[in-house]
Amino acid sequence: MALHRRNILTAGAGLGAALMAGTAPLLGSVGAAQAAAPLAGTPTPATFRFKVGTIEVTALHDGIGSRPLDASFVRNADLKDVQAVLAENFLPTDTLNISFTTLLVNTGSKLVLIDTGFNDNGGPTNGRTVAQLKSLGIEPSQIDVVLLSHFHGDHLQGARAKDGKLVYPNAEIMAPENEWGFWMDDARMAAAPDAMKGAFAGVHRVLKPNANDVKRFKWGQEVVTGITAVDASGHTPGHTAFAISSGGKTLMYVADITNTPILFARNPEWRVMFDMDADKAVATRKRILDMAATDKIQLSFYHANFPSTGFIAKEGSGYRLVPMAWTGVL
Amino acid sequence: MALHRRNILTAGAGLGAALMAGTAPLLGSVGAAQAAAPLAGTPTPATFRFKVGTIEVTALHDGIGSRPLDASFVRNADLKDVQAVLAENFLPTDTLNISFTTLLVNTGSKLVLIDTGFNDNGGPTNGRTVAQLKSLGIEPSQIDVVLLSHFHGDHLQGARAKDGKLVYPNAEIMAPENEWGFWMDDARMAAAPDAMKGAFAGVHRVLKPNANDVKRFKWGQEVVTGITAVDASGHTPGHTAFAISSGGKTLMYVADITNTPILFARNPEWRVMFDMDADKAVATRKRILDMAATDKIQLSFYHANFPSTGFIAKEGSGYRLVPMAWTGVL
Repeated sequence: MALHRRNILTAGAGLGAALMAGTAPLLGSVGAAQAAAPLAGTPTPATFRFKVGTIEVTALHDGIGSRPLDASFVRNADLKDVQAVLAENFLPTDTLNISFTTLLVNTGSKLVLIDTGFNDNGGPTNGRTVAQLKSLGIEPSQIDVVLLSHFHGDHLQGARAKDGKLVYPNAEIMAPENEWGFWMDDARMAAAPDAMKGAFAGVHRVLKPNANDVKRFKWGQEVVTGITAVDASGHTPGHTAFAISSGGKTLMYVADITNTPILFARNPEWRVMFDMDADKAVATRKRILDMAATDKIQLSFYHANFPSTGFIAKEGSGYRLVPMAWTGVL
Repeated sequence: MALHRRNILTAGAGLGAALMAGTAPLLGSVGAAQAAAPLAGTPTPATFRFKVGTIEVTALHDGIGSRPLDASFVRNADLKDVQAVLAENFLPTDTLNISFTTLLVNTGSKLVLIDTGFNDNGGPTNGRTVAQLKSLGIEPSQIDVVLLSHFHGDHLQGARAKDGKLVYPNAEIMAPENEWGFWMDDARMAAAPDAMKGAFAGVHRVLKPNANDVKRFKWGQEVVTGITAVDASGHTPGHTAFAISSGGKTLMYVADITNTPILFARNPEWRVMFDMDADKAVATRKRILDMAATDKIQLSFYHANFPSTGFIAKEGSGYRLVPMAWTGVL
């Protein structure tokens, strides 16, 4: 029996039933007993390791956060235009599932975690970075450095559990000087509009107790051997990308130069509600995406679909993320 | 310091060094000691679970096979045109890394493995299906059904280890009647051209010892509750797709209606060297891709980049696979 498209359209709940019409089951031995393995009901671990020269990079899926999509998400686009792009990508048009991917970098001399996800400060669909590490046999105590791109909660909160304990007890926390200056300023926090007070309080919760131990770095500095901080400001005042280089190869972790690239690489001028200096964020986004497309530099995003890494192709008036091929060969 | 594109171009082996020019390292405490965790040197497990109604589907990465790319791979295209598509996708143009993804389907009543990869009959970069299962706590002895799409070695050989033992000792092996009729015919095997004899011998190695136990099915038949065999012939005489349906949702496992969709969804008329009846394979490819694009049916391929599942968008004169968003939420 050939499959014709109309069979699918008319099949309703049972394509199998439609295809089976008039055909008696022939395989009586395969019935409805309980499977030898029960339904799992849980996602599989989600980690993806690849190399940059001699450096090992492992993408870790912290999870997703879902939010209703409304007109506020993209400040300068019609909701229907946003929904059209989502639909073209076979995604829901009423809900955004924003993905979070942290990055484990083993330079050979340091085990570095770039951004932290939520740990237990988020919801049931995120905070999985520690579980992903453990699935690889890595304990949080083995992390040497926690490297922060900026101080938004989805990048920062996972550094300290809800009970106040540091999640990576032996790690040196490193943060961009310009980000520190903005968020840790008590006068600015006191003067912040109500809508911003929670964000300030979240930053202070994580960083204040060990403020003297946090190492602050400047753009252009090689913060760990092989990892250089790069000005990517606009999204936040100190928003930082990291160029990870070894053996003539470079991966750039670009954090939030886009929220999902499906929307914001495609339309670099679209302004996501989270960009604090939207003009500067647009300029940074276009500059780095153009560099990546022209020079074929591999990028890792924080908000692309897992494993959230690949190359940038020019497409129309914007760009498209072409995911890295998952070879499973190091 | 701002990142300019020319910094990257002139950086050679060390983007970090270029960005650091004139800047003294400020973070003396982070030096070159051995990382607390050694370099792993191994890929991470690669599994991806999602649901189709109440059915759990888990993609398992058997691995890749690499082969030099030459003009024989696509029979009816210029090598330079093939290389151009690979380059646009940021892939090597002299080597093909062909990916293999098997599919574990838990219907709730049966644990079904669709296609088997290589087990220990391939090379060092494949044969990982059992390891992927074990990473999820599933033993090969728990598999109830091994369901074969067709009898090419990369789909079949993993059913029986090199030492002759069945890899899934408690599984019922199910195979397409039309595939069985072609490959298990001793007279056809004896008359086969030399170039085909190895393929026949490989099929006989796996299936002959337990020939009486192999269940043969016809197209249109519901082979396991929720899984229906669909005619996808052309690639081989009995090449079969499987429609996996539950709760009004359908996923179609399309096996080798394309080799990599990067080349053959984009150019459905291109003929890969492995298509045994190329005219029929092209017609099948176009029919199923058109159905998927029109009706938004999710497809799982065997040779797409892991996790090898997503939706089909029309693009130019062909199609493009849009990978399913990896939400990690079941």
